[in-house]
Amino acid sequence: MIVTVTLNAALDVTYEVERLVVDESHRVRSVAQRAGGKGINVARVLAGLGHDVTVTGLAGGATGELIRADLRAAGLPAALVDVAGDCRRTVTVVQREAPGATLFNEPGPLITPGEWDRLLRHLRALVADAAAVVLSGSLPPGVPLDAYALLVGLARDAGAPVVLDADGAALRAGVQAGPDVAKPNLAELRAATGLAELGRACAALRRAGARAVVASLGAAGLAADTAEGRWKAEPPLSVDGNPTGAGDAVVAALTAGLVAGRSWPERLADAVAVSAAAVHAPLAGDVDEAAYAAARERVRVVPW
Amino acid sequence: MIVTVTLNAALDVTYEVERLVVDESHRVRSVAQRAGGKGINVARVLAGLGHDVTVTGLAGGATGELIRADLRAAGLPAALVDVAGDCRRTVTVVQREAPGATLFNEPGPLITPGEWDRLLRHLRALVADAAAVVLSGSLPPGVPLDAYALLVGLARDAGAPVVLDADGAALRAGVQAGPDVAKPNLAELRAATGLAELGRACAALRRAGARAVVASLGAAGLAADTAEGRWKAEPPLSVDGNPTGAGDAVVAALTAGLVAGRSWPERLADAVAVSAAAVHAPLAGDVDEAAYAAARERVRVVPW
Repeated sequence: MIVTVTLNAALDVTYEVERLVVDESHRVRSVAQRAGGKGINVARVLAGLGHDVTVTGLAGGATGELIRADLRAAGLPAALVDVAGDCRRTVTVVQREAPGATLFNEPGPLITPGEWDRLLRHLRALVADAAAVVLSGSLPPGVPLDAYALLVGLARDAGAPVVLDADGAALRAGVQAGPDVAKPNLAELRAATGLAELGRACAALRRAGARAVVASLGAAGLAADTAEGRWKAEPPLSVDGNPTGAGDAVVAALTAGLVAGRSWPERLADAVAVSAAAVHAPLAGDVDEAAYAAARERVRVVPW
Repeated sequence: MIVTVTLNAALDVTYEVERLVVDESHRVRSVAQRAGGKGINVARVLAGLGHDVTVTGLAGGATGELIRADLRAAGLPAALVDVAGDCRRTVTVVQREAPGATLFNEPGPLITPGEWDRLLRHLRALVADAAAVVLSGSLPPGVPLDAYALLVGLARDAGAPVVLDADGAALRAGVQAGPDVAKPNLAELRAATGLAELGRACAALRRAGARAVVASLGAAGLAADTAEGRWKAEPPLSVDGNPTGAGDAVVAALTAGLVAGRSWPERLADAVAVSAAAVHAPLAGDVDEAAYAAARERVRVVPW
């Protein structure tokens, strides 16, 4: 079983409007809602790839209830710790005949020290059976800034490998506890290390504690710096679609490859192909199987 | 008691962001929520002016519960008919250091014929004691297009005067039943009549059935076409602030003047002053009392 942790679970709401114009009033043509937050999206992809997953993290309030109901409807096993605050929403506005999306991310509920302690106890029990632990996404207010360092340590104590997808201070703190893989995107990697050049930034994040770094480069694919070597994995062609879930698909595929003990070049090729298939799917967290198979044959993995 | 009807009640959510850029991702700095929909905002202003009000309309789902809870917290008596669907949200995005607002209005829940019948029975009982009835705002899906004509008729049968603030087909149908006052804004008036010139458009709406028409002209104030004469009421100076609730404040003041039997010039001067005070207040539905008193002394009402 793979455990994905979503500390700041969200209800992802998508509005379709005719055309988005700042300072105007818009009639929303359609409203779609689903459970979100990066860890939940990773779990969705892992389940789609055939893995046993358990979604955990923090959820509360009426919005938390909607998140739990959507996870049940999707058949995703969840063991979320209840909190008093109401979960956040994210609102994504898409235009009817234009690519791209405008996102509004609420900060999330204030977590009390008691709720955080309950999560730690809960997770300690859960990771005893875990093949891997995924720590993904932003921290809600009230959670300690070194939250991911505590969770990485807790998973490693239980012998479970850890994949970390975080940003800013949460990423910097988390890598110090030695996650097996850190997966920043290029902007996050640069911000966390203060270094613009990809190779130097990856090396700096490894020196800080990450055992391997996989940087996602958008349409250019992935760059990995690992104990076994450095590779770049390039997608077959640029893929049109919804890039929101692309990073979560990369995390899911890297975790699946870690659990299966595949070689780094194989893991990276899988991750690029799964990501291309996720971009092709209309909703974050879904994967288009035909697009995966087509992409997987044509990914190029090269040393750098 | 004044009854305000909100068929498409909403939870009005306001997001503050640093700067709104289409196709980018935004961290929401603060989230504010309150019960909304035009009829509820009108009730808030009427209560602030010291009137006995009852909020009615349709509300359902988890969002409906949040609307009811906010009305209770505000001390606004509510008798809403429960529906199965979830009430809509509106999302208003404001930028930290810029005026203006970007609005996203969800369509609202699908109302069943049975729910609509329940509303009619409920309202028939409620208007027996009403000094006036306010019909305000959009229609949710499933409600008959001539909903406002039915409700105007129902109120008039009970001897209660009616103020109608609607748009498009709902306005065109509603005026045919002879409301005492119709309050479109200039764009709504032009769209409903197909006439660009203010005087001719007002006259056409009266011919269609409205006993009086008050058109709101934004910063230029109000224009009224009534059986007693035609007046324009001009605000003392342009008022900076949040214009979202200005039209609802006009409706509230016009209704209060109708109930009190004040002359049309008095009603219009009050309406412009209350509206200026509402624009001055940070949230739709609130009225700044000092701003009201200052504006009231300086409104000019002139025949046209």
